[in-house]
Order: sequence, then C-alpha cells, then structure tokens
Amino acid sequence: MNIKGKPYRTIWVAADGWSLQIIDQTRLPHELVIVPLKNVEETARAIKTMQVRGAPLIGATAAYGVCLALRADASDEALDRAIAFLAEQRPTAINLRWALEEMGKAVRNLPRERRVPAAYARAAAICEEDVATNRRIGKHGVTAILAAAERKKTGERVNVLTHCNAGWLACVDVGTATAPIYEAHDRGVPLHVWVDETRPRNQGAVLTAFELGAHGVPHTIVVDNAGGHLMQQGLVDLCIVGTDRVTANGDVANKIGTYLKALAARDNGVPFYVALPHSTIDWTLASGADIPIEERSAEEVLVMTGRTREGKVVPVEIAAPGSPARNDAFDVTPARLITGLITERGIAPASRQGLASLYPERAE
Amino acid sequence: MNIKGKPYRTIWVAADGWSLQIIDQTRLPHELVIVPLKNVEETARAIKTMQVRGAPLIGATAAYGVCLALRADASDEALDRAIAFLAEQRPTAINLRWALEEMGKAVRNLPRERRVPAAYARAAAICEEDVATNRRIGKHGVTAILAAAERKKTGERVNVLTHCNAGWLACVDVGTATAPIYEAHDRGVPLHVWVDETRPRNQGAVLTAFELGAHGVPHTIVVDNAGGHLMQQGLVDLCIVGTDRVTANGDVANKIGTYLKALAARDNGVPFYVALPHSTIDWTLASGADIPIEERSAEEVLVMTGRTREGKVVPVEIAAPGSPARNDAFDVTPARLITGLITERGIAPASRQGLASLYPERAE
Repeated sequence: MNIKGKPYRTIWVAADGWSLQIIDQTRLPHELVIVPLKNVEETARAIKTMQVRGAPLIGATAAYGVCLALRADASDEALDRAIAFLAEQRPTAINLRWALEEMGKAVRNLPRERRVPAAYARAAAICEEDVATNRRIGKHGVTAILAAAERKKTGERVNVLTHCNAGWLACVDVGTATAPIYEAHDRGVPLHVWVDETRPRNQGAVLTAFELGAHGVPHTIVVDNAGGHLMQQGLVDLCIVGTDRVTANGDVANKIGTYLKALAARDNGVPFYVALPHSTIDWTLASGADIPIEERSAEEVLVMTGRTREGKVVPVEIAAPGSPARNDAFDVTPARLITGLITERGIAPASRQGLASLYPERAE
Repeated sequence: MNIKGKPYRTIWVAADGWSLQIIDQTRLPHELVIVPLKNVEETARAIKTMQVRGAPLIGATAAYGVCLALRADASDEALDRAIAFLAEQRPTAINLRWALEEMGKAVRNLPRERRVPAAYARAAAICEEDVATNRRIGKHGVTAILAAAERKKTGERVNVLTHCNAGWLACVDVGTATAPIYEAHDRGVPLHVWVDETRPRNQGAVLTAFELGAHGVPHTIVVDNAGGHLMQQGLVDLCIVGTDRVTANGDVANKIGTYLKALAARDNGVPFYVALPHSTIDWTLASGADIPIEERSAEEVLVMTGRTREGKVVPVEIAAPGSPARNDAFDVTPARLITGLITERGIAPASRQGLASLYPERAE
C-alpha cells in the first residue's frame, strides 16, 4: 500500500537484483527506516528481532533468506543448514516452517547451478500468492462494507472497528483485516476506522494507525476500553479483525481483547467479521478450547516504549513498582459471536458447515 | 489503609492541629510524597492539579480548605469567597459542591470567633462519614466474597477483578469497590485481585495496584483486554467496580471499559457487583441514556507518563505521529448486566425496585 503516495511492500528485492530490502518495523511509527538484508544471518536477525513480524511476512522473509544462503553456497548441506537456522528464529510460527518447506521442495532436486534462480522464483511466488490471497479477501470482504454503506444516509461514512494489526505490515502487502478496508477506500467508499490501541504491545496505535494514515484512510485511535461504548452510541457499523488460528468449528484465536469486542458487537447488533487466508485454518483442532494460549513476558505490560519530547525513543515503567503482571497474548472468540469468516474464497458462517462450504476438499 | 504496615488516610490534620497533610497522588506510584496545605490557595491548587482526586476526597479536601480560609479571615465575605474559589477548581465534581454547601451551613450563622473550630469539626465529620460509609459497604460487600469463597476448594483463593481505582486513594480511607476486598483480606480470607490497567489514565496499574500492594493484598495487573479471557478460563470468581453515577433504574456510569467486563461476566456466569455510597445515586435521571459522557483530551491516549531507567518520570508519545484519538471517559453498564449494587445499607438488585428497597425515603 502507499506511504505518502508512494507504493510500498514490506519486503522486496533491491535494484541490484539479489539483495533484500525491508521496512524495519521496530522503528515504526517513529521512523520509516528501510534496512538491507544481504545474507542469511541478517535475515535471521530481522526475523528474530521482529524487524519483520506477522505470519505471512515472516514466511516470505525466510524464503528470501534461503535465496541469500544459496547464493553463498548452493550445496545440499548449506540448504539444510539455512532451513534449520531460519526455522529456529520464531519456533511457533506456522508460516515460517511452511515457507521453508516450500523452498526446500523447489530447489532440492535441481542441479546446483539452477538452484539460486529457482529459489528467487519460488520466494517471489510466495510473496505474490500472499498479495493475491489478500486482494481476494478484500474483494469478498468489501461486500460487508458496501452493505453497511447502503444502510447509511448519503455522504455518511461507514465506521469500521479493528483490533491489533492484521494489516499490510503483517503481510507482504494489503493485509487481511485491512484488505476490505483498503478495497473500499480505494473504490471511494466514505470510510472511517476505529483503531483499538491493542495493549500491551500497542500494535493498533503503532502499526495499524501508521499504515492507515500513510495510505490516507481516515481513522481514530481509541483505547481498548472504548469499543463497547462506541457501539452503544451507534458509532460502529461493523468490526473486522484478523486471526492467528481458526479451528474446524469456526472458533477464532486472535489478539487478547478480541472476545470482548465480539461480545459488545453481539450486544449491540453490530456485524463482527474475521478475515483470514486458508492457511490460518487449523483443521486438526475441533474447537477453540484446544488452542494453547501463549503467555508472554510481564514486562510487556509494565514497560512501554515511547518518544520523549526530545525525540528519543525510550522504555518507561508505567505501573506500581513491585506489582506483578500477567500477559496472555491471545483469547478465543467463540464461533457463535462471529457474523462471518472472510476468506479468499468468500464469506462463510463461522461453523464447521460454513468452512466446509468454502473448502470442501478439506472437510471430512 | 496501610502503607508498608503503617496506617494512612489520604488527608489528615497535622500535629500542629490546624494545617493539612495529603498524599500527593500525582507522584504515585513512583514516590510516596506527603504535602502540607497551609492556606486556601494551596488547597485549591491540590484539587485543581489532582494531587487529590476521587469525588469523596475532593469534597473532604475542599471542606478543610474552608477551615484554612476562615483561619485567615472569618468574615462572611471571606467565607463566600473561599467557597466560590474552591468550587471552581473542579466544576463538574458533585461532592465538591455538596461539601462546600455543608461547610457554609455549619458556620454561616455563628459569630466569627466560633467559626474556625466549628469548621474543623464539620470537616472532620465529613471525613468520618466517608470512612464509616465505606466500612459499611465493606461489611455488606464481603458477603459476596465469602459466598465465592464457599464455592472454592479449601485453601484456594477467591479471585476478584476490579477496574479503575475506586479505592481508599479516591476517598478518605477504605474505598468503595475496595472496601469488601480489604474487609475480606483483613478477616484472613485468601484473596487475589486482578487489577485492570485502565487505559488511558492507568488508574488501575498506578493507583489500585499501589494501594493493594502497600496494604499487602495479593494482586496482579492485567491489560484491559485480558478480563474476558481470564473469565473464560475460570480465573475470576466475581467482579467489583465503583461508579461515578447510578441512575434511578440501576444503570451504572463508570470508567470506560466497565461495560465490556460486565458483558464478559454475564457470558461466563461471573457475578458482577458495583459498590457505591448513596450520594452516587442520581434520582433525577431515569436511565443511563440520560447521563452525559465526558470526552477528555486525546493527549491522554497518545501520551503516557512513566519512569525511565534513570528514575526520571517523563511523558512519552506512544502512537503513530499524526493519528488522531478519541477519549470518552466513561461508559454506561445497563442494569441487566449487574448482579447487585453494594451500598452502605446493603446489597440490592440493580433496578428501580432494588434501589427503592434500600432507600424508601427517596423512592416515589
């Protein structure tokens, strides 16, 4: 999407035809810094330190990491070493392992001299597939926004609420929850987005607000506490969020706090949509009760990073000294609270039947 | 309540018998600073700059401000001037105006030489009434905690979730939502409190965590997003919150985000209580729809104050530069989501009938 009118992706091959460029997301929103990656070690570090984050983007970056490794040494041993090394940077990221397997399959049976171009081709295809999937999510999801627009008076904008960052910064481009939003905005539908701050890591206030602002989408940051009140006041027409994992019955694991917004949406008759690519569906889990919830460091709750008046970015302690904190990263929104799952194949009810209607090849 | 074993109130008369001492709440939780107030100007500044905050404490402080004014000049003109001056420091605080009216009534018809001791006596009585009211809220509310304790296995602690700060720091002592918690803790009931951070002003992480920790009550800070997930996991036995205004039908205005927790409590069968003194009931409003909601500065959302590694307390910008924010201070929790209102007269259903059963003299 655009940053001040100029189109960007989160990762691309530089003008030299082989090195990579990424947006350093640890510097956002305070600075837009483009970082070059010239070898597999730099690529691994970018993944580990979350200069790149978001499942699809991590996968795409790792794919290009294999390309860089093969440029230095195209042997089988070097390939295996690179795949193992990259995989261990974020051990729980499903897309990371998937992308590395794809890269292995694409080059392993080729003679050495053909491996590097084949690797670049597969990595580029992984990126293009991500973008194409998200664009399809946008085309399907925009119908929900257009339906809301029809219920508004002429000239009134549609108010969408989103939580966390399931935007283009988490993907190669377009994003998942943001795909219908960008599609509607680019079609000229009058639109405004309520951006949940998304404590404790503030991905909403930091990343979603940044990318919507950079692309020119009207938006307002609110604390996570505000969404229920906004819905009571009739100020939210629909919610669209992303997800980390959807189980076979349509339950949705997403950033902590998603469940509270889904409850408020139900209480106020506001449609609540979840946008996802098929790769997020975990067909092996029967329901959300089976999803393990990551507990992260209390530090994320107790310490916040921000920019001082002097322009320095520093961490500050924000809570009573000595008080402990607990930091569950995700919660599960039961399927019963979800109006629809927006996928690259269409919108379906959040249920076993709904998912089966979109993915008959996966349903038993 | 105690700070490291030593009993404190938020305001008291110093050993000299006339000057005041307050805990400077703008320095909490980073420092415990006791500030003297020796004249009406210092008292007004303490109210205006929120060195004292919370409706009952603002009222008590203003009452003592009148005492200090009368010490300097006990004339009718000085009395009127002091009352008008103190009232304008926080124009929307109902308790402030009530306390000032009480002070006027207590001294206006007395000869000048008797005004100062009468004023100190009335101010002290206002403080004692606040403490006594809160202790009665504690005695009634503790029954809800004891009922939860009976449902636990032996040795298991009762988990209470609270939002914002309706603690002793907002009152003269004891607090409202915290009154049943302190009562249970002091009786030896094994208890643990989930403290909602309470964005954007973080009164939970800053004030509630501080006062619970200082009194020795086990507690854990969580982001406002977490409460629903904790309830889904069976980790919350009951919720107790305070309120800024209760309407005649039992609807409750409280800090933004309270409504979301009440929805989650209902969805998970967790009892949801609201603690309040009778002075919080607004008999003139039929329902929560009539409560005006204060919209505060966007700055509170976009800028956070914290302690750097060097121990300096500084403000930092935490959101995408240029993104706007909206900051509604309160939301309304409908009576249907509330298990009971805990008042100094007992626990009643959140309904017109429930309130009438406790306050028959006010019910039409």
